[in-house]
Amino acid sequence: MSVTKELAAYLVAAQPSQIPAEVKREARRSLFNYLGCALGGCRDEAVEIALRVLGPLSGPASARVLGRQERLDPMTAALINGISSHVLDFDDTVAKNFIHPSSPVASALFAYAAAHRVSGQALAHAFTLGVEAQSRVGNAVYPWHYDAGWHITGTAGVIGAGVGIGLLLGLSAQQMVWTIGLSATQAAGLREMFGSMGKAFHPGRSAQSGYLAALLAQGGFTAGEYGIEGPRGFAHVTAAQCEIGRVTADLGSHFELMDNTYKPFPCGIVIHPTIDACIQIHREHRPPAAQIAAVALRVAPIVLDLCNKKQIATGLEGKFSVYHAAAVGLVRGKAGVGEFTDAIVNDPTIRQVRERVSASADPKLAEDAVVAEVTLVDGRRIVKEVLHAIGNVERPMSDRELEEKFRDQAGEVIGPARMDEVVATCWKLEELSDCRPLVEMLVARA
Amino acid sequence: MSVTKELAAYLVAAQPSQIPAEVKREARRSLFNYLGCALGGCRDEAVEIALRVLGPLSGPASARVLGRQERLDPMTAALINGISSHVLDFDDTVAKNFIHPSSPVASALFAYAAAHRVSGQALAHAFTLGVEAQSRVGNAVYPWHYDAGWHITGTAGVIGAGVGIGLLLGLSAQQMVWTIGLSATQAAGLREMFGSMGKAFHPGRSAQSGYLAALLAQGGFTAGEYGIEGPRGFAHVTAAQCEIGRVTADLGSHFELMDNTYKPFPCGIVIHPTIDACIQIHREHRPPAAQIAAVALRVAPIVLDLCNKKQIATGLEGKFSVYHAAAVGLVRGKAGVGEFTDAIVNDPTIRQVRERVSASADPKLAEDAVVAEVTLVDGRRIVKEVLHAIGNVERPMSDRELEEKFRDQAGEVIGPARMDEVVATCWKLEELSDCRPLVEMLVARA
Repeated sequence: MSVTKELAAYLVAAQPSQIPAEVKREARRSLFNYLGCALGGCRDEAVEIALRVLGPLSGPASARVLGRQERLDPMTAALINGISSHVLDFDDTVAKNFIHPSSPVASALFAYAAAHRVSGQALAHAFTLGVEAQSRVGNAVYPWHYDAGWHITGTAGVIGAGVGIGLLLGLSAQQMVWTIGLSATQAAGLREMFGSMGKAFHPGRSAQSGYLAALLAQGGFTAGEYGIEGPRGFAHVTAAQCEIGRVTADLGSHFELMDNTYKPFPCGIVIHPTIDACIQIHREHRPPAAQIAAVALRVAPIVLDLCNKKQIATGLEGKFSVYHAAAVGLVRGKAGVGEFTDAIVNDPTIRQVRERVSASADPKLAEDAVVAEVTLVDGRRIVKEVLHAIGNVERPMSDRELEEKFRDQAGEVIGPARMDEVVATCWKLEELSDCRPLVEMLVARA
Repeated sequence: MSVTKELAAYLVAAQPSQIPAEVKREARRSLFNYLGCALGGCRDEAVEIALRVLGPLSGPASARVLGRQERLDPMTAALINGISSHVLDFDDTVAKNFIHPSSPVASALFAYAAAHRVSGQALAHAFTLGVEAQSRVGNAVYPWHYDAGWHITGTAGVIGAGVGIGLLLGLSAQQMVWTIGLSATQAAGLREMFGSMGKAFHPGRSAQSGYLAALLAQGGFTAGEYGIEGPRGFAHVTAAQCEIGRVTADLGSHFELMDNTYKPFPCGIVIHPTIDACIQIHREHRPPAAQIAAVALRVAPIVLDLCNKKQIATGLEGKFSVYHAAAVGLVRGKAGVGEFTDAIVNDPTIRQVRERVSASADPKLAEDAVVAEVTLVDGRRIVKEVLHAIGNVERPMSDRELEEKFRDQAGEVIGPARMDEVVATCWKLEELSDCRPLVEMLVARA
């Protein structure tokens, strides 16, 4: 049987009751993390530009953009949500296929749900299966597809968004086959855009393109029936090799969301182990900054390839400095959005500690490991070894840590007065009969 | 120097006075042919569905859709124009890279020009250079890109549309670099969609995506600077091999529009030589249908691979029947839209002649050649040999033939009363100070 047809048939038939409780929990965590990322990024310059350009061209403005005063037509809102939620590189990742799973799918779903009555359960179900389809197609072409230069979040993301919207629309199996085809034939996104606004544009455009695919398919617009596996379909065209069977293997028993991970710190992933170790030292020993005489890091070689800059002046540079990472972890005991501002990078105390940090490459250390040794002025030495940095699938962030991350990212938009209420509402998403009040809560009060 | 930057610098600096007269003539012919194709396809089911689905989601409806009563926001109009102009597979082709050049570029430009004051000269200039960029990028990746399964009209088309709109917007060189990057990173379209509405969706979505790229770049939305030639850019990611130098070779002296060809008949290209020969026999001898005893065709082998069906019942089947092609050529002396209807396929006279046609494969014959031999009931024999079918770059359609094709395609929309005026206005496009009155003329009177 065709994998496109088998996948489509499964997707339209699956019921929420067939999704295991641990998968539902991970969907809840993913969506919560997603909303925080969308709010954290919703005032980025890329978002401001896109809103300024596209606002005047929007259709009937039925969908609130996440975190913003603006309302747009749902497909344009999906584009903006996608940019917001990925622009800070702080969203979730499935390490085995490099897909950031939530941004394309949830950006489309929350745009739809901002304009239509959708229950929390329906949204979570569409999200779970949209991610499922997207990640399985990604598995089939990874690593060849990514290695070729495709930003897999952009490409597979269209299929995830299309499937998600298709489920909210209640499409038939035939319409879902067309949705997958029309999504696959819009799959795009070049890694050459990394380092520019083009990167965050990818999940946004994917969300919008998948949304369009599902709407057209619902209207009877036909597509090739073998969009994924056909000889000129997505897999063969975009990857030198592929394993088509992975699209449908264990369908309905293994769920891709179980492999999802959340990024605890808004900075280069390779300096996460250093931050993790230094925060642990802070919590356990609270060494005063003035007492820190030296910090010696042993790190994986790639850390010095990518994040070896000590003389820095901006928050952006701080995101890629292992020295700054150690300093904020030790002094502030955290590394949230507020630790990567220009002000903190130029703070005299942080700078002083940063200058006392040294780092050496140890080829025996894995990318998610570090050994940090702090020497105090009194000669005392504190050593902390991390084998798997927090955020890894082996050491997932707890619900409590996700909540701290959410509060950190969403704080500027929501403010402290309503934060508890917003957090509580996000956690009970599946109980909502209509997601619109939640979307309305995620906006700064005028 | 980067080819993306060199190309962008050329595009924004080039003046209409630097475009040779023969290139301007070909632009005029291409645009005229394009408009006929858009009108011919604008009532197709795929267009009706897309309008029904997207109409309610359109932004401020400032742009008339070509040939239609509907107005939409310009980006959505660009999508519909693209579907209309390609859905009948009757638009133009650059044989050396298989791109249908006009549909993505002109669909965006006429959508923009339907909503803004744009002179005919500005539109023709943007069209010429949009096609130029699109075709040069296509040359660099052809044939590897097409052979891999990419519908090159969809992929390269985004770049053509982006460049065209970018020129109408008066972008700077830097903004044009971003436009090319944001276009390249949206490039998509799988050949797996052939045989479905998805095929015509490609140039439509390309027109819309390129339009979006140019608008975002104008607003300051950044992209990678090496969208075409970078290690993770369009060329390397989408083609196993590429010849990057072809993007800028002879830039400003060779113009890609000089390689454009127009399809004389709305049916499979491999049966064009047969139609050509039979129309010539009709014109020279006018054999009455009842006098035709037998028709023997010698054709290239591919003709029988693709178009060997004699027992047919629908107009669509007629488009891929070499027997029907011979019959309508001989009996009706033409093969326009009206010769591929269900009614004509089932017409007793046509059917009778069709049943008397036989075809044999001759490996010595090229794809654009045929030998047709008609035997009349009185024993007389008429032989016609065609070496290059009409429409080939070696035997281009004349202006007069393009005009007949236009009248044939546009007739149902425009009607006979205004046809002469419309045709005359199209031919003098470059003299128009504003293209909007032309766009308004191309609509059925209520």
